[in-house]
Amino acid sequence: MAERLVRSRRIYDGRVISLRVDEVALPSGRTATREIVEHRGAVAVVPLTPHGDVLLVRQYRAATGGTLLEIPAGTLEVGEDAPHALQRELAEEIGMRAGRVQHLATFYPSPGFLTEVVYVYLAADLTPHRLEAEEEDLEVVRLPLPEARAMVDRGEIRDAKSIIGLLLAGDVIAGT
Amino acid sequence: MAERLVRSRRIYDGRVISLRVDEVALPSGRTATREIVEHRGAVAVVPLTPHGDVLLVRQYRAATGGTLLEIPAGTLEVGEDAPHALQRELAEEIGMRAGRVQHLATFYPSPGFLTEVVYVYLAADLTPHRLEAEEEDLEVVRLPLPEARAMVDRGEIRDAKSIIGLLLAGDVIAGT
Repeated sequence: MAERLVRSRRIYDGRVISLRVDEVALPSGRTATREIVEHRGAVAVVPLTPHGDVLLVRQYRAATGGTLLEIPAGTLEVGEDAPHALQRELAEEIGMRAGRVQHLATFYPSPGFLTEVVYVYLAADLTPHRLEAEEEDLEVVRLPLPEARAMVDRGEIRDAKSIIGLLLAGDVIAGT
Repeated sequence: MAERLVRSRRIYDGRVISLRVDEVALPSGRTATREIVEHRGAVAVVPLTPHGDVLLVRQYRAATGGTLLEIPAGTLEVGEDAPHALQRELAEEIGMRAGRVQHLATFYPSPGFLTEVVYVYLAADLTPHRLEAEEEDLEVVRLPLPEARAMVDRGEIRDAKSIIGLLLAGDVIAGT
């Protein structure tokens, strides 16, 4: 099923993403063009308090033209692994450190053209620990997990990592 | 919270995606750069048989370097709405038409830089109806919905639309 790379053209090398356009030979012998957006990967984390609340962040997202309510998340730094990145993002976005983390899922947001992989965790045993972030204009929102889950069902939480994290966290908490 | 656009530079205009780089003024007055990948949006659909099986497709995904098992999906054509696109993709990818569809979710795969929106549906009352596709090298896989759901939990189904579609379809079928 694999494709053979014929030619690759680099279009853009950026801070968050890069873009290349590949010409590939299909198994049938025909050629096709693949626009590939390169991304280092990201972490996302469902931070759970002892009372069963989750801590979410509301922020403006230029690509969507509005604000979104999301679980804390961010791009991996160069050479950074996911467990380190999730603690960094928790400290930068909600001022917490997690004593306990559990992997929930690893997923491709849009595998048709995007190399990004997102590692999703559940985090508990939170203690205050703040890191200053370069660019974080966000509001922290605390909600009972079932209420956050209901916002997924009502279409009020609508980004992939938050939907996946909250659905799977609900299953973990329910013990299924 | 909104950002004010200062300058926009078009980098690439492609078939599936385009890329622009915006300079924006933050509420604080500082400026920042936003790399924005533009995408027309996509549909994804969980096709359910009367026996409670789902029909999935396995295909090579150049951006991931391997094959993925996914629910049928595809990019909206220019001017096409989601209900039309989902019937087209069902016909092209699994040779079926749905007599009944139900909206499950609408989500942003990666809202930090990507404008793509994905509309996810459950489809039932399937009848044979094939459309020839320009470029579809894929294998159809039929599985009981609970087995597909177990593959999500085991990390064997790992793209956002399929995880979200199968988790929410499972909830709909279970009547929760």
